[in-house]
Amino acid sequence: MLPVKSVELIEVGPREGFQFEGIGAPDKISTENKVRLVHALAETGLKTIQVTSFVSPKAVPQMADAERVTELLEPRPGVTYTAIYLNDKGLERALAAGKYAIEGHVSLTASETFSLRNQRRTFAEDLVMQRRQLAIYQAHGIPVRRGSMMAAFGCNYEGDIPLQRVLDLIETMHELVGEIGERLELVSLADTMGWADPEQIKRTIGAVRERWPDLEIQLHLHDTRGTGMANVYAALEMGVRRFDTSVGGLGGCPFAGVAAGNVPTEDVVFMCERMGIETGVDLKKLVACAKLAEEIVGHPLPSRVAHVM
Amino acid sequence: MLPVKSVELIEVGPREGFQFEGIGAPDKISTENKVRLVHALAETGLKTIQVTSFVSPKAVPQMADAERVTELLEPRPGVTYTAIYLNDKGLERALAAGKYAIEGHVSLTASETFSLRNQRRTFAEDLVMQRRQLAIYQAHGIPVRRGSMMAAFGCNYEGDIPLQRVLDLIETMHELVGEIGERLELVSLADTMGWADPEQIKRTIGAVRERWPDLEIQLHLHDTRGTGMANVYAALEMGVRRFDTSVGGLGGCPFAGVAAGNVPTEDVVFMCERMGIETGVDLKKLVACAKLAEEIVGHPLPSRVAHVM
Repeated sequence: MLPVKSVELIEVGPREGFQFEGIGAPDKISTENKVRLVHALAETGLKTIQVTSFVSPKAVPQMADAERVTELLEPRPGVTYTAIYLNDKGLERALAAGKYAIEGHVSLTASETFSLRNQRRTFAEDLVMQRRQLAIYQAHGIPVRRGSMMAAFGCNYEGDIPLQRVLDLIETMHELVGEIGERLELVSLADTMGWADPEQIKRTIGAVRERWPDLEIQLHLHDTRGTGMANVYAALEMGVRRFDTSVGGLGGCPFAGVAAGNVPTEDVVFMCERMGIETGVDLKKLVACAKLAEEIVGHPLPSRVAHVM
Repeated sequence: MLPVKSVELIEVGPREGFQFEGIGAPDKISTENKVRLVHALAETGLKTIQVTSFVSPKAVPQMADAERVTELLEPRPGVTYTAIYLNDKGLERALAAGKYAIEGHVSLTASETFSLRNQRRTFAEDLVMQRRQLAIYQAHGIPVRRGSMMAAFGCNYEGDIPLQRVLDLIETMHELVGEIGERLELVSLADTMGWADPEQIKRTIGAVRERWPDLEIQLHLHDTRGTGMANVYAALEMGVRRFDTSVGGLGGCPFAGVAAGNVPTEDVVFMCERMGIETGVDLKKLVACAKLAEEIVGHPLPSRVAHVM
């Protein structure tokens, strides 16, 4: 028997997927279509949807319409909409947008090389940026309870990430959040480049739990090397009940040379429901969303369930 | 720690894949290309390769070249080549081919509806056919130690398959094999239509083990609904070390309305090796085979690892 009766799935498809699809083709996905998918997802029972990224329009031109997306977004009561940002400027834009739940958090990256490529910051520079964002949360009276860690399970540039580094970074998160008198309650660990195997998932969760028994764990798992669903299962065995997932597997594409995205939401829903774990999601409606996503991006997505329902 | 130090992967891609690819287009894959892939796979370290099907050329015209495939096949020492058949006629053809390891076995199907569609036989008719095949094995002095069961975890037509039916059919296998004075040593359970979830895998293995502690278990897992790799992991946790896998995920195709094939061999190899489980397979060479398979079929295959290596 699994120690989990229900899971909370955080839908990251619109943000992950449309960012990925727009690489080299920033105008490929219209703002209207982005919002159309978000609206459809809000009807499935999913409670949290990551909508867009407030990042540099120069570095990530396909996300330059983040404000326009927000304008068109018609929030459905009971659904929480979120957005991501990588620095203080992005945070200020997300705050100004007014429609997103701003969850105060610190974000660290387990691979410095990846940090340099993704956020263009060293570890040391990242700490400065995290403190700057913490000050903004404080100024707005936004509680800070979360930490999130990119590249926690392996890196295309640095290879294996030692478990000790993951623990050290969580310790740093506790310290950073403690500096403003807040307390870390949840840490989200991302297998950003899809290196994790299920035994590593269990070892990592076990080690984090041993040190911080009350810290809730959330996982963000890419299926780049086919281990995504096995990793979800291993985490369920460990009692994890919060997962980022992506409708259709948006953020990837089943063609040579292209990495797969997050674990597909509908595949996770199917597996969970079949094991008696409640997701609160209507699988039929969700599959319709995956098909809409395929129509919008113009190619098949990595999802399995969406292709047989 | 997993109770498994090494696994044996049985490569079923050429048989599964080229049968699938030829649906409605029997001449799509040339005999030369079929054999080319088998020859390449024999260089990867895989020890067993399922090459072709001796089935009715009328019902399955894309496998009508089974004898021609055999003619072109140049066996590599140390590699075992196998073929499948669904009745006595097919078995006689496989025997006559002379290049295949004929493993005496009984084969039953947990869903009678699927049996009627796939083998055009009721349960009762299947028993007659199994006995006819057993007589042929006896006449050739071929030991019979294996049972294989199709649709053991769920059926597109009948829905859930009760665990008791699986146990009853294994009991029947023991009886059938016992009738000719042989003893069942291994049972291969196939999730033919991809309905299994990892908890069901564990329950099933647990129940079979409880009743027949010495019976070895092999699994044949389709990834139709995204649970394939999680099912492999669950089985590894239970100590299973024999899996059918398919290079590239041959037997499926990532397009709408098309089911995924077997778990991709290279994804299983990656996951196992990362968890310290030996496969004996050279992943680079295997990925080259997956790319060759994509070239031969002319479209992307469901594999994850092959698209990032």
